Amino acid sequence: MNAPVPPTDPLVLFMPSGKRGRFPVGTPLLDAARSLGVYVESVCGGRATCGRCQIEVQEGNFAKHKIVSSNDHISPKGPKEERYERVRGLADGRRLSCSATVQGDLVIDVPQDTVINAQIVRKAASDRIIPRNPAIQLCYVEVDEPDMHKPLGDLDRLNAMLAKDWGFEDILVAQHLLPDVQKILRKGNWGVTAAIHRDLETSRPNLIALWPGLHNMAYGLACDIGSTTIAMHLVSLLSGQIINSSGTSNPQIRFGEDLMSRVSYVMMNPDGREAMTKAVRQAVNELTVKVCSESGVNPDDILDAVFVANPIMHHLFLGIDPTELGQAPFALAVSGAVHTWSREIDLAVNHGARVYVLPCIAGHVGADAAGATLSEGPHRQDKMMLLVDVGTNAEIVLGNRNRVVAASSPTGPAFEGAEISSGQRAAPGAIERIRIDPDTLEPRYRVIGVEQWSNEEGFEDAVKATGVTGICGSAIIEVVAEMYLSGIISEDGVVDGGQASRSPRILQNGRTFSYLLRESHSGGPRITVTQNDVRAIQLAKAALYAGIKLLMEKQGVAQVDTIRFAGAFGSFIDPKYAMVLGLIPDCDLAEVKAVGNAAGTGALMALLNRDYRREIEKEVSRIEKIETALEPHFQQLFIDAMALPNKVDPFPRLAEHVTLPEKKAATDADRGGGRRGREGRRGRS
Amino acid sequence: MNAPVPPTDPLVLFMPSGKRGRFPVGTPLLDAARSLGVYVESVCGGRATCGRCQIEVQEGNFAKHKIVSSNDHISPKGPKEERYERVRGLADGRRLSCSATVQGDLVIDVPQDTVINAQIVRKAASDRIIPRNPAIQLCYVEVDEPDMHKPLGDLDRLNAMLAKDWGFEDILVAQHLLPDVQKILRKGNWGVTAAIHRDLETSRPNLIALWPGLHNMAYGLACDIGSTTIAMHLVSLLSGQIINSSGTSNPQIRFGEDLMSRVSYVMMNPDGREAMTKAVRQAVNELTVKVCSESGVNPDDILDAVFVANPIMHHLFLGIDPTELGQAPFALAVSGAVHTWSREIDLAVNHGARVYVLPCIAGHVGADAAGATLSEGPHRQDKMMLLVDVGTNAEIVLGNRNRVVAASSPTGPAFEGAEISSGQRAAPGAIERIRIDPDTLEPRYRVIGVEQWSNEEGFEDAVKATGVTGICGSAIIEVVAEMYLSGIISEDGVVDGGQASRSPRILQNGRTFSYLLRESHSGGPRITVTQNDVRAIQLAKAALYAGIKLLMEKQGVAQVDTIRFAGAFGSFIDPKYAMVLGLIPDCDLAEVKAVGNAAGTGALMALLNRDYRREIEKEVSRIEKIETALEPHFQQLFIDAMALPNKVDPFPRLAEHVTLPEKKAATDADRGGGRRGREGRRGRS
Repeated sequence: MNAPVPPTDPLVLFMPSGKRGRFPVGTPLLDAARSLGVYVESVCGGRATCGRCQIEVQEGNFAKHKIVSSNDHISPKGPKEERYERVRGLADGRRLSCSATVQGDLVIDVPQDTVINAQIVRKAASDRIIPRNPAIQLCYVEVDEPDMHKPLGDLDRLNAMLAKDWGFEDILVAQHLLPDVQKILRKGNWGVTAAIHRDLETSRPNLIALWPGLHNMAYGLACDIGSTTIAMHLVSLLSGQIINSSGTSNPQIRFGEDLMSRVSYVMMNPDGREAMTKAVRQAVNELTVKVCSESGVNPDDILDAVFVANPIMHHLFLGIDPTELGQAPFALAVSGAVHTWSREIDLAVNHGARVYVLPCIAGHVGADAAGATLSEGPHRQDKMMLLVDVGTNAEIVLGNRNRVVAASSPTGPAFEGAEISSGQRAAPGAIERIRIDPDTLEPRYRVIGVEQWSNEEGFEDAVKATGVTGICGSAIIEVVAEMYLSGIISEDGVVDGGQASRSPRILQNGRTFSYLLRESHSGGPRITVTQNDVRAIQLAKAALYAGIKLLMEKQGVAQVDTIRFAGAFGSFIDPKYAMVLGLIPDCDLAEVKAVGNAAGTGALMALLNRDYRREIEKEVSRIEKIETALEPHFQQLFIDAMALPNKVDPFPRLAEHVTLPEKKAATDADRGGGRRGREGRRGRS
Repeated sequence: MNAPVPPTDPLVLFMPSGKRGRFPVGTPLLDAARSLGVYVESVCGGRATCGRCQIEVQEGNFAKHKIVSSNDHISPKGPKEERYERVRGLADGRRLSCSATVQGDLVIDVPQDTVINAQIVRKAASDRIIPRNPAIQLCYVEVDEPDMHKPLGDLDRLNAMLAKDWGFEDILVAQHLLPDVQKILRKGNWGVTAAIHRDLETSRPNLIALWPGLHNMAYGLACDIGSTTIAMHLVSLLSGQIINSSGTSNPQIRFGEDLMSRVSYVMMNPDGREAMTKAVRQAVNELTVKVCSESGVNPDDILDAVFVANPIMHHLFLGIDPTELGQAPFALAVSGAVHTWSREIDLAVNHGARVYVLPCIAGHVGADAAGATLSEGPHRQDKMMLLVDVGTNAEIVLGNRNRVVAASSPTGPAFEGAEISSGQRAAPGAIERIRIDPDTLEPRYRVIGVEQWSNEEGFEDAVKATGVTGICGSAIIEVVAEMYLSGIISEDGVVDGGQASRSPRILQNGRTFSYLLRESHSGGPRITVTQNDVRAIQLAKAALYAGIKLLMEKQGVAQVDTIRFAGAFGSFIDPKYAMVLGLIPDCDLAEVKAVGNAAGTGALMALLNRDYRREIEKEVSRIEKIETALEPHFQQLFIDAMALPNKVDPFPRLAEHVTLPEKKAATDADRGGGRRGREGRRGRS
């Protein structure tokens, strides 16, 4: 309609997008929404049979928008809509936008079922709506029957109808459909539902699946393949609703606990790469079966899948040898986004399903970091955001809309409880919270699965079932921080043997000292924090902090405005203790947030909206990658960061939350201690 | 170069295209050719190492073009070209156009190795040059080494170089290459050859294969899958040269001799479709191995393949159930061109190789007819061309640049020697030529594999080895025509018992008569032509002629200007006898030509030049399809065509070549004879 629309035409406002326009009386609301670029699903193409295009009228006087909206301003239900309501049911207030027409001013609510909330992502910053624009569209068409006068093939007539009814020109047909086209058309009595995939606007639309009649289901997977854990969301591509979320451990662990040992396994074993690829793909398939069967979804209805992973998992999952990532110059086989087919990676979903893998940022900063960046969006805001995902390597992203920089830092596995004498995974029996009395040096702690603190009544009874078996990753941060706050260790990380006179918990082990957290008890182990444990945490935190500091220097900032901790580790640590130890720079603690599996959230966003794919592809090419190994300054930053919280940076805001021990002036001897790294060191007593 | 070129710049004319332009002194001839759209191959990208860009200077005074061309007007060989000559050799007069530059006016010959000539296509109309523009291009690039400051993946840097050096933007990478990219790049010391496939200009370029270093070989297959025979050309995509051509029988014959019996086999056997698909693909693979091993080509260097086939072979080869083609409305699963990958149809060539299948015209007019149309080009000329491919169905195309119509006509297998009492395949021992003396009614004939005619000395000795075993397809036409010309059969096709008094070769069989061609001889069979044989040929020729006549009526023409016989049958029959029998309408005999496997030639053209793919796709959508079964008039045309040459059409030009028997005025009784079809009929004696 190029004719000017009279200003007296009714005004329609769509929420939550806020897009608005004037439409002649009688315009179907689906058409109105589409002409404004408001995404409303429809499978049946306006036949009022799929029920995907539901909307709701918001009644009331919206003075701000100068709209008085009422159900009187929408057409009453016609026979088709009434039939749908009778057969399928329609919730109170819901209308089918393909049938309901504009009769007056309206405020229309387009229900958004994809809300990232606390059930999905632990401690999410806030509930967030993901606007939808999936790469997959289901299209019901009624195909002309064969005509000997115009002997176009069945498939060609199907394509012609997809062009006519849905605007898809020049369709590319997945080869595996050719043998089935005729049977499906006849089974559906010439009515069929086609799944069209179009990711890039410049690519030809792809016919990837076909069903007889109206097929009103399409699902997608968003999956984060971590070294330890594989996490997956099953999502309806038609409603945007998250149907199920689950996780499983990465079976590659049997080839090597950490990433580098898996690369070594590939280098040492001729079939190593293949075995690990097979293992991870099988685990993804088993997890897919699990999320599907728990929610009654047929895996054949899964048409799209988005993956994020760190570079080594990314390569192994795609069947690429990761050897090059194990050595400088850490060359990725492919850094750009990977667009492929489910069958190319043996994914047990629809044979025509598509796969999208987010781009990798660098050899040590993977598609998972890209996913976390997409989720948290430093590039979408003015605040200087620090985004940290701690694993064996810490992936660090720092920036705002002007500029984003990224690096990885070799923290090692200490934060995950490895290389810690009493370290263990987060599981029942593991200590997860610790406080130390600065006067008596007596500890109290909480154990996973038990309500009481260790000094509370009933604790020993409660832990009988599991015992107290070790310290989990998040608690290691706390115990070292508490040891520092209570003066058991100095700011240089030395366990102070001089304190042994104050408390029997300070134990001597040869030339160093350790702290006794819990005596061996009814068969449970003796749990101590040794000088080596403290050194391991110091090294890890120094690596992390040095990486952060390097990026802050690149950005030319002395402070960050907001901090996001992604990943499991980040979900459990207390930001206050992270700052006491100097894992992170000084920041308003209210601005330090754990965002759970942000990488998986990024995958989910890319699954539900292909615009996010373009956004992260563009952003990844724009992000400046800093290779810590090439920065001569990194070593000095690392040494400076060994101290608690560190040697050089002020933490003015920390004092608002904790009482810091009296700070001793740095001496040359202290610096030497930093330089000597892992070596044991005599106490100052 | 947007600056105006001074008119004093040297003039360069490229042959055989005749394209010309002025270029500044020093312009490499490869650049000059490309800027004019003259296709000159180059793999190495101007490094003077692949030798694919050779040209020759034509010396002389080309007065018509106002050019005096001389080898003095081209730069002398530089060090790179001299090195190539020393290492690889360069034929006399040949130059590398990437290194040789314009120094004065030049006439340049771009060697065209693809010439369709008599060795390739029997009795070809004329040698023809196929201009080249293949869908595959080999591109040598030197890729930047990994850089930790710019951690783009290896593949991403390869793509960047393909964009920079070769202009391929937004490359789509075949998934199966991902695991190999890093090893290939390192093996080639960062120099690799990429195979880029781009068929449609609007599609993204596709990286389909990759080799370390300079890979200077790329081949393609052009293949015609007939019901009886599979024919294949192996072609160099870099030179256009046909390396080898061969054929094999279609092993599907064991499931059914003709097309309809194969469709029945599929309908009766649950695994029938799969078994036939497997059989034909295996035969294609074995033929591929044969043409490759005979010419020392590695099948892994085959990167593109083009197929033509009749609709049922087309479907079975692509794995599609052909049942719908066995019954009205004869619905094709797909009529448009099929673009796919070698691995999708189990083709044992390069894993990334592409496959292109020409479009089908209608349910009975297949991709083979499209290939023949592309080869003979009725749509490219003013003359009204009749193109006939005779098999179990005759595929008929009639038209010129204004309009093309097509139909198939159910000739049945008589022309192929089936349903003929003494019919057999063309093989040693089969009669291939026959003459009958109109006075004595004595025959003389030639046998395949023997020089002499049967009435010449030494014939009986010569045929001892094979015996005389039957009559092959082309000779069946001749013997019926000669029987008509000698008065043994009437224009209604009745074997005239009255002639028995003139010759002992007229034998009575119950109520009908037959003609004795050869008495049983040293164990060989008695060879006769029976009344039923004549009826079978009459029915076949009536079907063919009625189809042709229908199309002539659609075109509104009483005559055709030129006739092309495609296929094996057409290669051996004598046009004169075809006209005597009324297989074809009256036409200047000099304009009746056999063009051999024109369908295969069309496949070859589509392999060597993707512009031909667009041409035939467009033409097929434009061709008007006539379904004979839907034309009420067809039955009358069929009846009228039963007589010899036929009842209604004049054949004025036939009298120039043969003495026709005195024509008897048509009577009602004769027409009745035609209507009764296959029934025996009493002689007129």
